[in-house]
Amino acid sequence: MPSALILIANGTEEMEFTITYDTLVRAGVKTVSAYVAEYPSTDVGGDRSPVVAKCSRGMKILPDMLFDLSSCGPDVYDLIVIPGGAQGAETMSKHPSVQEVIKRYIERNKLVAMICAGSLAAKTAGLARQPLTSHPSVKAQLDHDFDYLEDPVVVSDNLITSRGPGTAFPFALTLVELLIGSEKRAEIRAPMVFPSNTPF
Amino acid sequence: MPSALILIANGTEEMEFTITYDTLVRAGVKTVSAYVAEYPSTDVGGDRSPVVAKCSRGMKILPDMLFDLSSCGPDVYDLIVIPGGAQGAETMSKHPSVQEVIKRYIERNKLVAMICAGSLAAKTAGLARQPLTSHPSVKAQLDHDFDYLEDPVVVSDNLITSRGPGTAFPFALTLVELLIGSEKRAEIRAPMVFPSNTPF
Repeated sequence: MPSALILIANGTEEMEFTITYDTLVRAGVKTVSAYVAEYPSTDVGGDRSPVVAKCSRGMKILPDMLFDLSSCGPDVYDLIVIPGGAQGAETMSKHPSVQEVIKRYIERNKLVAMICAGSLAAKTAGLARQPLTSHPSVKAQLDHDFDYLEDPVVVSDNLITSRGPGTAFPFALTLVELLIGSEKRAEIRAPMVFPSNTPF
Repeated sequence: MPSALILIANGTEEMEFTITYDTLVRAGVKTVSAYVAEYPSTDVGGDRSPVVAKCSRGMKILPDMLFDLSSCGPDVYDLIVIPGGAQGAETMSKHPSVQEVIKRYIERNKLVAMICAGSLAAKTAGLARQPLTSHPSVKAQLDHDFDYLEDPVVVSDNLITSRGPGTAFPFALTLVELLIGSEKRAEIRAPMVFPSNTPF
């Protein structure tokens, strides 16, 4: 069974996080969320008790674990997901260990998926120029360093990028297809009951 | 500013809950989630500490408050939302206080919204025969008592029903339109960046 790690932080866009998490679980992917603290850490002790991520529109989500370079690498998971939400994406994209782990997934040819402002992490991790998309609000920070596209989902080898909450379903379904195949994508899509003529 | 109450329980479908919550907040609706415990309660004491709802695909969400008949009525909120997820919808639809509060919203001409298996609460609350939809998996439990439709979103006076995670965006956007208007719906829809040709 493939496995996936989804990062979460204060300010993460809760729809992008939830649609991706839930869709991967529906496909049978072993899915784990990991909380990324602000860097440098404001943590004053060794407290490793569960934290609650306060998301971009106020929802409070309890992550499955804390992010840690040694336990979140491409030796453990087949896919890492960086969701959007301005504040959460800033925390993730500026975190040295997140940048390092993204590079390791790319090097090991595992999947790296970014949506919305999460695509900023492609730049901060120093990924090579390649096709990419993001939320329109951060396009100006990315279009000099990447071949910027405005498609709902852009697949560039093992880097998958997408645009916002409105593209989170095709983003998540694409990840299922890449991890397991198009039959599984179709199988889990049907009971979600999309309106007819939905273009994904 | 309009206000909305969204119920949550163990087994609630996290995409339906999150898409509705987040979209309402984006529209400026004062949005509160309330945890519904199984009935009869297995609670053995007076513990009112925060609980975590374990959702249908394993996500853990911290509700804003505990459901209580006296603080969740139509004198406080303009809209009550019953999300799906088989187990969560069963807990809500069988809970006498949830049934009572739904009747009070209808009587006071406030909005009642149900999605997926959440539509079962229309039956258990004894609502009058009227147009309604639900997830296909519970159609057989509803189509004798209601005028069952298969549209993505059905608006029947102040009862709004919908089908599943794939219709959660048009469901939530319809609620915004009914509470605030079509301009607000269009305003918050744009930055979500739906793919072109999305039929809602």
